[in-house]
Amino acid sequence: MDVFGSPIRQLIGEFAKLPGIGAKSAQRLAFHIIHMPGERAEALAAAILAAKRGVKYCSVCCNLTDADPCAICGDGRRDGRLIMVVEDPRDMAAYERTNEYKGLYHVLHGAISPMNGIGPNALKIKELLARVSQAGVEEIIMATNPNVEGEATALYIHRLMKPLGVKVTRIAHGVPVGGDLEFVDEVTLSKALEGRREM
Amino acid sequence: MDVFGSPIRQLIGEFAKLPGIGAKSAQRLAFHIIHMPGERAEALAAAILAAKRGVKYCSVCCNLTDADPCAICGDGRRDGRLIMVVEDPRDMAAYERTNEYKGLYHVLHGAISPMNGIGPNALKIKELLARVSQAGVEEIIMATNPNVEGEATALYIHRLMKPLGVKVTRIAHGVPVGGDLEFVDEVTLSKALEGRREM
Repeated sequence: MDVFGSPIRQLIGEFAKLPGIGAKSAQRLAFHIIHMPGERAEALAAAILAAKRGVKYCSVCCNLTDADPCAICGDGRRDGRLIMVVEDPRDMAAYERTNEYKGLYHVLHGAISPMNGIGPNALKIKELLARVSQAGVEEIIMATNPNVEGEATALYIHRLMKPLGVKVTRIAHGVPVGGDLEFVDEVTLSKALEGRREM
Repeated sequence: MDVFGSPIRQLIGEFAKLPGIGAKSAQRLAFHIIHMPGERAEALAAAILAAKRGVKYCSVCCNLTDADPCAICGDGRRDGRLIMVVEDPRDMAAYERTNEYKGLYHVLHGAISPMNGIGPNALKIKELLARVSQAGVEEIIMATNPNVEGEATALYIHRLMKPLGVKVTRIAHGVPVGGDLEFVDEVTLSKALEGRREM
């Protein structure tokens, strides 16, 4: 017996397709929407369509943006000699929150992962090469994730960059600030020891 | 610095307003939508609008439905002498999943809760009274939630029904099937003892 009728069932189904939303959450969200004021539901639907339609890649750094170049590439005060390479726009946002980094970014939109069928051509590596070939870039900071795919991607890009004579660095591995040594895995502990610096 | 631009920020904001979705989940959902095929994003937006616009209350039981009367009230095989009163359409769906109950329902859309400013007039109690005054109803099964608000609501409706001479019952309190006595709270244990039945 279909208790709710098809529009509700359909909305529950659409929500359940989203990542991290199970059947129960999808039901709760659908009922929330049915009970919310009409203009709020319309605002949500409109925001989905606007984000899907209005967002494109920045032609310089491949960040997701509604303006081209994006706010960071268009900001004359940033240091164009530094390019930090990240996998995802959210990684970039994370580094922006530190308020420490004043260079530019390049977003790969993924990492090399043969297991998942993602090769170098699926990433924005060509665009990075084109940027680096142009004048003024002095250092590429590899800030891909500290996992197998991220390391492989960093290594791959490092090899591509070698002939161009540009400096390629990798963000440090080590124990997270505020963490407890007891709970840090062995590989990280080894990396932290290996990367120790004089105080 | 606004890293992503306004359409993404707006979508993240809309998602973050939904129940159970925090800032991180909202960001993940927004990026998922930006990366999904255009027609899937449109299907989600359309489902939101269709559910919001196409869903109304069943004129008989006040369930949410796209057809009037709803699938259950319109089903001639159900036993019209029984009305189970629930707080929410989802409670009704839960009882439907048992495949045990063959009577009709009445959905209150909430429970009496003076703390939250919800009085009897905010609920579909008038509609229930009108149904019961008509012919043929023999028993009202109160299946409101087993908490303070649900009990108060059940008690309130029980008093209203008394002059009408209709039988009012309450679903049993007790230990949940498959549960472990050790972890059941004292009030439930007392209720289970109080409600014991001969084997």
